[in-house]
Amino acid sequence: MNIQDTIRAIPDFPKPGILFRDISTMLLRPDAFAQAIDGMHEHFKDKGIDAVAGIESRGFIFAAPLALKMNIPFILIRKPGKLPAETVSAEYSLEYGTDSIQMHKDAVTPDMKVLLVDDLLATGGTMEAACRLVTTQNAAVAGIAFLIELDALNGREKLKDQDIFTLIHY
Amino acid sequence: MNIQDTIRAIPDFPKPGILFRDISTMLLRPDAFAQAIDGMHEHFKDKGIDAVAGIESRGFIFAAPLALKMNIPFILIRKPGKLPAETVSAEYSLEYGTDSIQMHKDAVTPDMKVLLVDDLLATGGTMEAACRLVTTQNAAVAGIAFLIELDALNGREKLKDQDIFTLIHY
Repeated sequence: MNIQDTIRAIPDFPKPGILFRDISTMLLRPDAFAQAIDGMHEHFKDKGIDAVAGIESRGFIFAAPLALKMNIPFILIRKPGKLPAETVSAEYSLEYGTDSIQMHKDAVTPDMKVLLVDDLLATGGTMEAACRLVTTQNAAVAGIAFLIELDALNGREKLKDQDIFTLIHY
Repeated sequence: MNIQDTIRAIPDFPKPGILFRDISTMLLRPDAFAQAIDGMHEHFKDKGIDAVAGIESRGFIFAAPLALKMNIPFILIRKPGKLPAETVSAEYSLEYGTDSIQMHKDAVTPDMKVLLVDDLLATGGTMEAACRLVTTQNAAVAGIAFLIELDALNGREKLKDQDIFTLIHY
């Protein structure tokens, strides 16, 4: 079974000219979903990872099972105003304006090696901000996992010097 | 290990007078997180469940590992405008106004027995809407799992006749 075959392409979503890669059809196939988690686990299992951080909300879908499989803490990276305790924030650029993501300050401890997880690498802005959340708390980004990478958008450029693992390239 | 001891109470979030139950500290404890998933699995494993549906975004944290553990499809229930293919919607009341959730029409098949999952049962409005998403597609709600139930808010009333399993009551 090829995971890529379970992902559906939807033209003109969320706006004209965009071909949206729909992972929801993959998630309906437990064999494909398990294969994705197993692939990420296989790549990072011997790399001394201390915690897995997932980016809201589709990153949670992969980060939560991966953290459980690795038997290590699962850290939430969320949209602003969602986390109730003291947070650290990082901004990133959108096509028009900026947005930001947050993490609880006490979610990481100094020198912790964190694996960051999201479903899709496009321009890399969100993930680059997530890296800053971790490093400003004196923890380290030990790796980054994506289900999908859109190669033409060069998001990897923004994340240089990182161990990036992607299951599917378009 | 008592899962409840790993959940942090934050006063006055998101507004004065609310005592917020913060699950992020529980997710940092892989033993507690695994125990939560195992508890839901134990309750529903022999009940003929065909698919697990999680409600964005904290529901994803529990629904994704549970679907993998049960080796059945994982269905996304999302906020409006996020799902790219043809959707069905259900509205629910907020303190002021209404909000809605959506599911892909082709995510469920007729007569499918669906287990709905979210992190918290408060007034039950969102979960009651999720039940309607499933039943309007001629599938059945075979059960509902929550990590936490706030008993004083009587959310269970809105979900009567359902097999509701909750790990922690406040």
